[in-house]
Amino acid sequence: MMDQAAKPQDRLAAWLAQDMDLVNGLIRTRMASEHAPRIPEVTAHLVEAGGKRLRPLLTLAAARMCGYDGPFHVHLAATVEFIHTATLLHDDVVDESARRRGRPTANLLWDNKTSVLVGDYLFSRSFQLMVETGSLRVLDILANASATIAEGEVLQLTAAQDLATTEGVYLQVVRGKTAALFSAATEVGGVIAGADERHVRALFDYGDALGVAFQIVDDLLDYGGTVAAIGKNPGDDFRERKLTLPVIKAVAQADATERAFWTRTIAKGDQQDGDLAQAMAIMARHGAMEAARQDALAWAAKARTAIGTLPAHELRDMLADLADYVVERIS
Amino acid sequence: MMDQAAKPQDRLAAWLAQDMDLVNGLIRTRMASEHAPRIPEVTAHLVEAGGKRLRPLLTLAAARMCGYDGPFHVHLAATVEFIHTATLLHDDVVDESARRRGRPTANLLWDNKTSVLVGDYLFSRSFQLMVETGSLRVLDILANASATIAEGEVLQLTAAQDLATTEGVYLQVVRGKTAALFSAATEVGGVIAGADERHVRALFDYGDALGVAFQIVDDLLDYGGTVAAIGKNPGDDFRERKLTLPVIKAVAQADATERAFWTRTIAKGDQQDGDLAQAMAIMARHGAMEAARQDALAWAAKARTAIGTLPAHELRDMLADLADYVVERIS
Repeated sequence: MMDQAAKPQDRLAAWLAQDMDLVNGLIRTRMASEHAPRIPEVTAHLVEAGGKRLRPLLTLAAARMCGYDGPFHVHLAATVEFIHTATLLHDDVVDESARRRGRPTANLLWDNKTSVLVGDYLFSRSFQLMVETGSLRVLDILANASATIAEGEVLQLTAAQDLATTEGVYLQVVRGKTAALFSAATEVGGVIAGADERHVRALFDYGDALGVAFQIVDDLLDYGGTVAAIGKNPGDDFRERKLTLPVIKAVAQADATERAFWTRTIAKGDQQDGDLAQAMAIMARHGAMEAARQDALAWAAKARTAIGTLPAHELRDMLADLADYVVERIS
Repeated sequence: MMDQAAKPQDRLAAWLAQDMDLVNGLIRTRMASEHAPRIPEVTAHLVEAGGKRLRPLLTLAAARMCGYDGPFHVHLAATVEFIHTATLLHDDVVDESARRRGRPTANLLWDNKTSVLVGDYLFSRSFQLMVETGSLRVLDILANASATIAEGEVLQLTAAQDLATTEGVYLQVVRGKTAALFSAATEVGGVIAGADERHVRALFDYGDALGVAFQIVDDLLDYGGTVAAIGKNPGDDFRERKLTLPVIKAVAQADATERAFWTRTIAKGDQQDGDLAQAMAIMARHGAMEAARQDALAWAAKARTAIGTLPAHELRDMLADLADYVVERIS
């Protein structure tokens, strides 16, 4: 009997433990390279760091709750984890991050070159894995997700430092950096299982809303978390001059003095000691953190509603609980 | 009547001009991004710089000489050009190059971040294009080529500065950086046309040998070309401490003094004025340039032999002439 008090993600991991063993085995096999020993060194650094394996669990859960009993949900789960890891490697180059998952990033331990090329290698390995499923529809979904991810990353780069960034642009960036892979992960699980179209659609909607909620929470914690809780330094987004949701909301309501503050710190990048605290005080004054929190809760509720349209299943209930859990850190 | 004295590539371009117009139109359409205007700025910089469009011509020629009259050779030609351009963007980050195709590189005009992310975007766009062909075999070939490319790049990174690099490792690197995409370009042309298996195999062998010859020539010219001829600074490979074929051959025959020279300049990277000239003198002493030149000629002959097994066709003869032309700069 499963402990109902356990975290939803742990309950998913327990239910799907056998499948997940196969996924981990496939990941280890496919991240190897006969000719270039540096590849498994770098990928092992990331893969062993653990991460939460959330995306592959989403794919496995979606396929299993739709009754799939073939082998290819394992390939697809490994595919989404490879895409995720490749994205992290390239992100770390782009963000010039020093820490990831609480450990030094690959680009600090090796160099940017290695991060770029090993990321490319993992992308191409993920591509091979999905071709093996023989499903053109799955390939189409993942090709589109890849384009959305890359487009969102470029958009984030150009939107950074731009005080005119709207909540609409923010949502596009968030879809790219997080929600596109979440929704592809759940959708391909349904597709490989041959689920009804309306169920496939609901799985997509669930992943999309879960991803948006997840990213808003992440962005909120960057202004309120600790290194231990978020695995990176709080305030990184501010220092990198990213227009995340609470900042966008605060900028929208800024008076002249505040606007000058945002222009100096974000648009011009002239930051001094105490500016981060000042930014947080301004956001608190306008209720920007609270408003962003409410948005995250609404996306989580949307995810729960979407998954609720699928037939009753233990995994369905765990996914619904996961939507609540994602926002629990800010509740 | 085609001028038989024209360069083979120009004859190919003239014969395939209508198809190539469609390819260029598709490239322009697909490199656009609704949300991220920086993407077409960067890609236009590369695409308008022209390059030689050699790879898409290979795909179009292979498909047409095998009697293809459907629409998808155009998608595949655009696919290989996108993969090539994405690879160039990432290479420039990795090599820290300042010039590409005779113009400043994207990472100098924008930044490394943009080069990484726009490269990822082009990869994902190429992936979408190939999915549209509906051919799982084409997807399989291009997925494998992508993995070979990425693996070869990582291998080159770790083989750089390593005097123990063998000609076998060099060949693997060359397959990754050049030949894998050439051979995939010709092979998918045959596959989409439904050609006989032996003809598909010959098209693969042609592209592979052509690519190896092409890269050896490129590596030779780095020690003997001019900025005008090669679109980059001669001696870049030496300064980047790359173990290319003539260096590998010279190192294999080095006496103690020469070995100390290679250890200082390549292994340790302690380079001074005059070292490039000294390296060239040592290579000349051992006939290393000439031996590498003979290797390139042998690969070109192998390409000509492979394409000669296909049925008679004007395009076939142009491809055979192209094999000779590729090595003409060193003949």
